[in-house]
Amino acid sequence: MHVTLIAAQSLDGYITYHAKPGSAFTSEADKQHFRAALKQFDCRVMGSETYRVTRDMTRRAAAAGVLVIVVTRDPSRYADEALPGRLLFSSGSPGEILVQLEQAGRKRCALLGGSKTHSFFLAAKVIDEIWLTIEPRLFGGGTRLLDEPTDTVLQLLGRELLGGDTLLLRYAVGRRS
Amino acid sequence: MHVTLIAAQSLDGYITYHAKPGSAFTSEADKQHFRAALKQFDCRVMGSETYRVTRDMTRRAAAAGVLVIVVTRDPSRYADEALPGRLLFSSGSPGEILVQLEQAGRKRCALLGGSKTHSFFLAAKVIDEIWLTIEPRLFGGGTRLLDEPTDTVLQLLGRELLGGDTLLLRYAVGRRS
Repeated sequence: MHVTLIAAQSLDGYITYHAKPGSAFTSEADKQHFRAALKQFDCRVMGSETYRVTRDMTRRAAAAGVLVIVVTRDPSRYADEALPGRLLFSSGSPGEILVQLEQAGRKRCALLGGSKTHSFFLAAKVIDEIWLTIEPRLFGGGTRLLDEPTDTVLQLLGRELLGGDTLLLRYAVGRRS
Repeated sequence: MHVTLIAAQSLDGYITYHAKPGSAFTSEADKQHFRAALKQFDCRVMGSETYRVTRDMTRRAAAAGVLVIVVTRDPSRYADEALPGRLLFSSGSPGEILVQLEQAGRKRCALLGGSKTHSFFLAAKVIDEIWLTIEPRLFGGGTRLLDEPTDTVLQLLGRELLGGDTLLLRYAVGRRS
């Protein structure tokens, strides 16, 4: 299983504008990139807050055949939301979740937030790549890309101007020795 | 007076590695860039913590003719450190500090941290450019680029690979309407 964290942040590292949930602050160039990028993945993992914010879009993708697993401490709370074999809710470890996706025949996983889920998977050393959109904004506050301290070394794979002043940086995830 | 904020951060927006003061985490490529970049400025402004961390280097630059103003709430505390006309300590506003530099005939100011000083000058709308080195690291904790919420729009001026996986991004500072 190949896992790619996909996110957009302000230059100073916030994935939300102040306390406002979701990524409404992102540019049209990023939204186009995000839609196109998602087509390269046959499964998605996200936290429950990201699920709530992207619920309609996520359920449409699941209905169309993308296997989605939502990470939550309390899967029973979402019993009415689950779509068997398509949209699942799990309190498992990153390793367990990825095994579950593999057993369903999936090969490329998009990790879609939020910061807790990013850190949960990063700490488990299962993230292969990070595709990070850098919006030309400074927020000085909001939700961070990561929720826990780490010391992770990256290798730059690519940099691309998505449009306007918005950059896409792609990194492979290494590990500080 | 043209003011350029110069800093280096992890990809996720930290200008220190966790709680460790200073920028020892930066790459050799960034250190070379930083030394070369500073030659383009005839004055420097920094907060008192940045002064303490860079004291020897900063005093050498002041002795060599760069006018340095250290922003502090308590200039009297540094009475023994001051070098008249070269290294000054001020509790003035950003506007007052820049006037003082202009009256000394200076034209290009490098703003060198830390996060409180960045936010102090950003809120006063006196920063013209931001030159931000992006190190290929994730820290998940540390001192942030900015200390206060803002909503500042930037224009991308340039992007450059400094060496290895280290990027330099240059932005002009606009203002969200």
